Amino acid sequence: MSFALHPMKEIRIVVQGEHLKFVKELLDRAGATGYTIINNVSGKGLHSFHEGRMLFDDVSSQVIVFTVVPEERVEPILAALGPLFKKHSGTMFVTDVAVSRREHFSSS
Amino acid sequence: MSFALHPMKEIRIVVQGEHLKFVKELLDRAGATGYTIINNVSGKGLHSFHEGRMLFDDVSSQVIVFTVVPEERVEPILAALGPLFKKHSGTMFVTDVAVSRREHFSSS
Amino acid sequence: MSFALHPMKEIRIVVQGEHLKFVKELLDRAGATGYTIINNVSGKGLHSFHEGRMLFDDVSSQVIVFTVVPEERVEPILAALGPLFKKHSGTMFVTDVAVSRREHFSSS
Repeated sequence: MSFALHPMKEIRIVVQGEHLKFVKELLDRAGATGYTIINNVSGKGLHSFHEGRMLFDDVSSQVIVFTVVPEERVEPILAALGPLFKKHSGTMFVTDVAVSRREHFSSS
Repeated sequence: MSFALHPMKEIRIVVQGEHLKFVKELLDRAGATGYTIINNVSGKGLHSFHEGRMLFDDVSSQVIVFTVVPEERVEPILAALGPLFKKHSGTMFVTDVAVSRREHFSSS
Repeated sequence: MSFALHPMKEIRIVVQGEHLKFVKELLDRAGATGYTIINNVSGKGLHSFHEGRMLFDDVSSQVIVFTVVPEERVEPILAALGPLFKKHSGTMFVTDVAVSRREHFSSS
């Protein structure tokens, strides 16, 4: 039996927990069919430019949200998340992943 | 000093916690030399077709299991996991990763 | 609006919690501008060669640290982490990721 794997994109978002609701609603509206949340993540990173680009240390209330979407959904999701990261600390990454069941990641 | 990186595949599995034991035993039998488990993950996604393809919301008892294996192990592992995802909600992803110590990820 | 994504490398490190401080200090010195830590991870894997290459089971005090850096930082970070993994169990992986804000991941 041959196993077909379909290329998709994973978007991983690291934000303060207080912004989780916003991110979830945005992903729902953007047509992501699902996401996974890792709670109680800590980290160190740059504040946004808005906040002066200072290092913050050991923030313990972050969450990681990741979702897997078809490539054409990446740009609208990143564009919609952009304003959040202009104001608040956090980051987002895009990675190539493959899935065996493409239909699970497309709501259309 | 030059640092050789060897291409491998990461398989990431998101399942309800009640299926963790099954997944671990399957990975052991499939010759994965190790795996990492992130507990207490929440998420939203599609139920399996078997369950009617309804959205479930904020399930909090999921786990993420990831393992890194040589490419030739990917297909048998996905094939063995397939029946689980036909019956129960959950997903699996395959990603390219590189490791510096190849021998740590091959049991043969 | 076109959205430029810049290629970067993610280094993911899985270590016993007792080595987290060492890893964080090393990443700071290596010029990583940030990292994210997932606590209370469990797993199964190979002990280091030093420890005899035995399987260990269900270690519950591991952490995952991931950082995103420009490609030229990967080799020095892996080289600096090497001695830790010669003596202690743990692993590190390198993955291609893309970011929308390159300047957040370069301290120079």
